[in-house]
Amino acid sequence: MEKKIITISRQFGSGGRTIGRAVAERLGIPFYDKELVEQIAMESGFAPGYVDEHGEHAPGKTAFSYAFAAQGVPGVMQGMSAADFLWNIQCSVILQLAEKGPCVIVGRNADYILKDRPDAMHVFIHADMDYRADRIVNLYGQAEKAPEARLQEKDKRRKLNYQHYTGRDWGKAENYDICLNSGKLGEEACVDFIVHTVQNSK
Amino acid sequence: MEKKIITISRQFGSGGRTIGRAVAERLGIPFYDKELVEQIAMESGFAPGYVDEHGEHAPGKTAFSYAFAAQGVPGVMQGMSAADFLWNIQCSVILQLAEKGPCVIVGRNADYILKDRPDAMHVFIHADMDYRADRIVNLYGQAEKAPEARLQEKDKRRKLNYQHYTGRDWGKAENYDICLNSGKLGEEACVDFIVHTVQNSK
Repeated sequence: MEKKIITISRQFGSGGRTIGRAVAERLGIPFYDKELVEQIAMESGFAPGYVDEHGEHAPGKTAFSYAFAAQGVPGVMQGMSAADFLWNIQCSVILQLAEKGPCVIVGRNADYILKDRPDAMHVFIHADMDYRADRIVNLYGQAEKAPEARLQEKDKRRKLNYQHYTGRDWGKAENYDICLNSGKLGEEACVDFIVHTVQNSK
Repeated sequence: MEKKIITISRQFGSGGRTIGRAVAERLGIPFYDKELVEQIAMESGFAPGYVDEHGEHAPGKTAFSYAFAAQGVPGVMQGMSAADFLWNIQCSVILQLAEKGPCVIVGRNADYILKDRPDAMHVFIHADMDYRADRIVNLYGQAEKAPEARLQEKDKRRKLNYQHYTGRDWGKAENYDICLNSGKLGEEACVDFIVHTVQNSK
């Protein structure tokens, strides 16, 4: 089936977001990164409505919760933390974005949320520590913490978040259709291959 | 650096070996699969000589053991099992094959054994269970055990073997430069991309 939804998961500093944006530009389709998904979730008007409903109804009785049950997303409406609450709204936003048409979605565990869509292609971008350390210092400058420590902390948080919400191991090759080492292959080669694969999918 | 050594690790039934052979043919370089490496190891004449020496000298005193120490391969010459013994010879064979020149090596944890060679490119091929089950039934016919059970057993053995000898998790994206789902992308697309990447590496 033609692949029109591309999810990109990535190690921090690997250039996954840059690659995702370039893929979207080349394909002429919308690009949603983690921040944009968060913003849409918070501006959706869905949130306040959901809060109201959550306060008034027993768990599991809303159309919203059924939607999640159908997608197999765990932990909905059971004494939710703020993080869980945001996660659930974002799941819904990502499902809706994919429904709207071709796009590139970076982060927010979109690979898992859209794992059952046959028209989705899941990509993981990673790179060696040295490459990523150089890259984040160039991009974001030096910080009090050494770049390696910042990378390890970010990776650890992404890993724990992924495991918590999906029950799967983060960065396991079999969860993705394509995994690329951007440091070894170069960002341009990654973009070329992803675009080529999408354009040649049937 | 120009990539001239290609290691291919793969889930059983994913077509990784077929892809590796096609890559070697397209690049006009030798192809070594697991069976061939085993055969070379057993026919090398290295084995009997090593057995003799092992019987006569204290551990850690041979040029052979120094070679392994330098490569960081664990477990050498410490009350070795037959499996450990074969593993060590195969490590040596793989290091020598890589030294001889460009080639494709499938299996035998060659990604780990050659992880420190800057001219090596490491590939992992995997595919969904359904695709692999169909493929092994077509290739090898039906067996008493269901194909899914055969696949799970083989994967488990590869995983345990890899973990035992390398201390790393098998199938983790960051251990490879390229991981591809052959079932989703098609074997030909995998071959094309690997060949293209090798030919464009600098």
